[in-house]
This record gives sequence, structure tokens and C-alpha cells, in this order.
Amino acid sequence: MFDIKPVDTEFDSEIQQKIDTKTKPLGALGDLETLALQIARVLGKDKPQICNPKMMVFAADHGIADSGVSIAPSEVTTQMVVNFMQGGAAINVFTRQVGFDLEVIDCGIVKPLENVEGVINQRLGAGTGPIHKRAAMTLGAVKQGFEMATARVDLHHKNGCNLIGLGEMGIGNTTSAAVMMSALTGIKGEDCVGRGTGIDAATYKRKKMLVEQALLLHHSELNDPMQVLACVGGFEIVQMTGAMLAAAERNMLIIVDGFIASAAALAAVKINPNVRDYMIFAHQSDEKGHYLMLEFLQAKPLLKLGMKLGEGTGAALALPLIQAAANFYNQMASFEDAGIDI
Amino acid sequence: MFDIKPVDTEFDSEIQQKIDTKTKPLGALGDLETLALQIARVLGKDKPQICNPKMMVFAADHGIADSGVSIAPSEVTTQMVVNFMQGGAAINVFTRQVGFDLEVIDCGIVKPLENVEGVINQRLGAGTGPIHKRAAMTLGAVKQGFEMATARVDLHHKNGCNLIGLGEMGIGNTTSAAVMMSALTGIKGEDCVGRGTGIDAATYKRKKMLVEQALLLHHSELNDPMQVLACVGGFEIVQMTGAMLAAAERNMLIIVDGFIASAAALAAVKINPNVRDYMIFAHQSDEKGHYLMLEFLQAKPLLKLGMKLGEGTGAALALPLIQAAANFYNQMASFEDAGIDI
Repeated sequence: MFDIKPVDTEFDSEIQQKIDTKTKPLGALGDLETLALQIARVLGKDKPQICNPKMMVFAADHGIADSGVSIAPSEVTTQMVVNFMQGGAAINVFTRQVGFDLEVIDCGIVKPLENVEGVINQRLGAGTGPIHKRAAMTLGAVKQGFEMATARVDLHHKNGCNLIGLGEMGIGNTTSAAVMMSALTGIKGEDCVGRGTGIDAATYKRKKMLVEQALLLHHSELNDPMQVLACVGGFEIVQMTGAMLAAAERNMLIIVDGFIASAAALAAVKINPNVRDYMIFAHQSDEKGHYLMLEFLQAKPLLKLGMKLGEGTGAALALPLIQAAANFYNQMASFEDAGIDI
Repeated sequence: MFDIKPVDTEFDSEIQQKIDTKTKPLGALGDLETLALQIARVLGKDKPQICNPKMMVFAADHGIADSGVSIAPSEVTTQMVVNFMQGGAAINVFTRQVGFDLEVIDCGIVKPLENVEGVINQRLGAGTGPIHKRAAMTLGAVKQGFEMATARVDLHHKNGCNLIGLGEMGIGNTTSAAVMMSALTGIKGEDCVGRGTGIDAATYKRKKMLVEQALLLHHSELNDPMQVLACVGGFEIVQMTGAMLAAAERNMLIIVDGFIASAAALAAVKINPNVRDYMIFAHQSDEKGHYLMLEFLQAKPLLKLGMKLGEGTGAALALPLIQAAANFYNQMASFEDAGIDI
């Protein structure tokens, strides 16, 4: 479905040699050195540059939100989308600061927005079905979501963008992500369920019960990642998965952030494992289960700031570190350049 | 010696209220929220802004380097200073990227530089004495170092700077920092000694031996932080300590980075504990002992990227996170602003 090449490792020794002869002790830039190798593999060994980075924030609603799994009702998804468009949310502040161009995509919030300019319309419906009672969406909707996300990523690619960050907004989506995680990794449901943005003990108990119910209900369908997306995914999660696959197909870097984005990444990796080579993990969230998910993906995030907000905030904060990796690779003097006897 | 006020906590509940009513779940920005509180305490609750951030890199040589405790000879200190002035080192790349104005201060490298423009001359000598045989410097030199550092910080303060980062270059300085750490914390010498920028087993053994030797030799003097600086410090470490104290006195934020800078911070805190309120810890380095030192300082660094380079590189990489904390505090909408029912 997506034609993703594994990254080219042919020039690894040349890239590593360039990193090792910079005016610093061997390995002294730690994780930034690993990152520089990845960036050079994807964007080219000679002078890899991050160009026109785009933060895509995908918003949608979840039928299961009506069953009380979150601190807020579905209406808040829409209200936060309005907040994004007015520039008042955390993701607005962080993307403005770091030079990440932000767009907000309505993948299926409860009601389409009226009188709000600028939201990209890629609606797959008016919220998903409640996943503990029926499928979130049809397989056709998943495929349509992939097509829409691909078209959008393709547009950015044609405009010279070679890195996307992915964020999301969707009341109820940590529940969907927890079910997806259990289905795709085999980790027990209860170990995948966290407190989202801060639910109380009773809500947490209900959330765990509904996750088990969803896993049981769709049990026979959960062997295939496309079916996982259809049965227990979300409109925004589907489009994030599609955007990641489309970005890798176009040789773009992908910043994965937080629990929901990581669930989308997990689905993408199950669909085409080569996509993993293009992913940079931004932040380990405080959400229970995220650690296990990152371990499953063999990912070591750049940041661990105890955040649990979503929106792509971790991805935005990680961009300067990614640029720093590219910059030291491109700009630092070698021992030879600097005439240093080491 | 330094007149440092403890930070004003009078408006804490007002500041916290402002943080808590931003359009995000309670506590969802994790460590950035703690940081925003600190920034608002130091720079003012209404609209705290980081202005004209200055990265001060202090360079000096260490007599003990002649005894083979490092991967490189003292000459490399000078060569790296030249590299700084030519813009080719990691600290140049990172400060350029994040908008940190960089200056390099010669606190006492082996030979003064000729034909190199722009290095600030604050020399206290031509390298310190070998601390395992005699004192690094006189108490007079420590005081002179404080005066020079204070004058420099005062200049930046008068130019509107309200945040300094501190970096260093000095072959042999992890040895000095390890002895200081043991003297100032009571932690056993061997637990303070690490492999610096990557020494082999034989050098590591020798380094540990020399640290013990220095601790034993100066034993009777090590109860006073000024004496610790004089007996086992370094010209760059002394000036970093002085710069921190001077910055706090002027109500400026201080980014502390890495093992050497943390040793200077430790001395500063021992001289005047109020300075701690102004310190932001940037990066936990891979140097053994740094973790223990940070624990002693009750510090939780923003980054942990496995770096072990010094120069202030961690401080430079942390600046965007510090700005992000100020920016969300200043710019995010409140629930009321955004009309969100939570």
C-alpha cells in the first residue's frame, strides 16, 4: 500500500567518520550523534538540512467519550480546535517559538466548525462509533483516511517540507490508543491504560473495564493492523498513521510524540516496518503505558519532561534538538580544520 | 560578600493560579510548569521575558594535566579557544542556533593568545598549580577571580541581559571538579571521579589516586568553600562560581550545565545558599558523579542526552525549553479567554 524503502545505510561509515572527527571527544554529543546519523541517512550525508518543518495536528471525536472515560466531554475537542485557530493553545505557543508551521485538520469532530477559518477539512464522520459496543469505523473509512492524509503530506512534500511533526486533539483518544496498543503488542489491556489527562479512580476503573470490553468484542479482528484501526482506532489516529506512512514513502523525517501518536506509529510499523527508520521519538509522556510502548518500538525519546498534554507539544519542543543534531553535523569544524592535535 | 535575596515567593499562589487556568489539564506541562514558576518568581509574575541571554565560556589550564589525567594535553585548551573564536566548536553551533550571545573568557590558559581577536582577558595566571602537590592558587586569586567575573556579569546586566549560561574549557578540569565535589559534599573521592571525556582504565586509576592525594594534602583547609576553590579549584571554576553569585545578586537566571559547572554551582551554594533559587539545571551528563552532585543540589536537569562535552553545550540546548516555559506562561489562553467549559 505504501512503498517505503529502508533507509540507506551504505554511507554509514562515512557519516560516522564525519561525526567522529568533529572537534569533540568521541561520542561526546551522546544521543545527538545517533540522531545525526539517522538524519544523514534520511536526508543525505553531505549537508542534511531540515526544511519547512510542518506540524500537523489531527482532531477528531470518539464515541466512547460518552461513557465517561475522560476529564472532559467531547465538546472540548471542538473548543480546543477553536483555541488552536485563535493561537491560544500550548501547541501554538511552542510551534511559533521554534518555527514549526502549524496546521489543524478536522478528521471528524462531533460537529463541523462554522465560522472558523483555516481548519483543514478531512472529515471521516461525526465522531467514531463507541468501540466497546461496535467498530469505530469501516475499513473503507480507514483507507479513505490514509488517502486524505497522504494527499496532505504530499502537498507539504511538494512545498519542500522534509520533516513532519504529528499532534492530536480528541477527547477519549487515550482509551482508543490503549486498546490499539494492547491489540498490536499483546501487552495486557490493564497495563496499557493510564489516567489520560488526569481522571479520578472511579473513571480510571471504568476506563479499564471498557478497554477490556473493546478488546473482547473485537477479539477475532485484531490480528490485522488495518482492522485494529477500523475496530478500535480513531479518525485522527488513522490519519496520523497514514501521514507517517506517506511521509516515510517520500523520504521525510517524522517526529512522533506522546501516547496517541505512538499508537499511530505502532500501527504504521505493523503495516510497513520500514517506516520505523524515519521516526524520531520526541518525548516520553507521563501516561502509563507509554514507556512500554516506546520499549516495544525500541525508541529512546529525546525528552522526558513529565508532560501529558498531546497536541504535538513534545514534538515541537524536540525540534530544536533535531536541528542541533543536523547543525553540529554540518557546521562543526573537524580536528584537521581546526589544527588540533588529538 | 554577595548580597543575594532569596527569591520572592509572595506571589506564588497568583502565579500558580495563572499556570493552572491555562487551556490544558492541570499539571499537563510537567517540568515546564515548575520552571515557569521559578522564572516568574525571579523575573516577575506579570510578563517574565528572557532578555539578551549570554553564554559565558570560561577557559583555563590545570597544573594537574601534566600528570596525565585526561585524553589530551593542556595545549588543547588553547587550541579549542581558538576554535571557539573561529566559530567551529559545538558551543558555537548551538549558541548560534538558539540565539545565545557567546563570549569566551581567558581565565588563565597556559599561554596568553596572540593574534586572536575577541577573547576576554581575565587571566589569573598561566594555569593553576598541580593540586596533588600544592594549592591551585592563592585566596587572593580567588577573590580577584570573583571581582573579574562580577564586573563582567555586571556589564551584561547593564546591557539588559537577565539570563546567563556558563560553559568551560580546561583540560584536567574534571579532576579539579571531582576533588571539589568530594570536599564540598563529603561524598567519597572515588565516587566523584569519572572518565571525563573518555580516558582509559590506567588513566582512570591514576586520576582516582591523584584525587585522593589532593584530598589528603589539603585536608585541613577544606572546610571553607573559598579555601576549597583556592586549594583544588581552577581559574575557570572560580570565575564561574563568582559569575553565578554575581548574577543572582542582580536577579538574573543562571543555567548550570555539566559536571564542572555543577562543581562551581556547589561552591556558590556553599558560599551563599540563596543563589540556588536562581539556578536552572540544563543537562545531566554521562560523567560519573554528576548524578550524585545533582542529587546533593536537589536539582532535576531538563535534559539527559548522554553528552559529556562541557563548553556549555547542555545549557545552550536547554535555552529553548526555558523560553518555552516563559512563553506558555505569557502567551497561552486561559479557559476563560477561550470559552472552554472545564
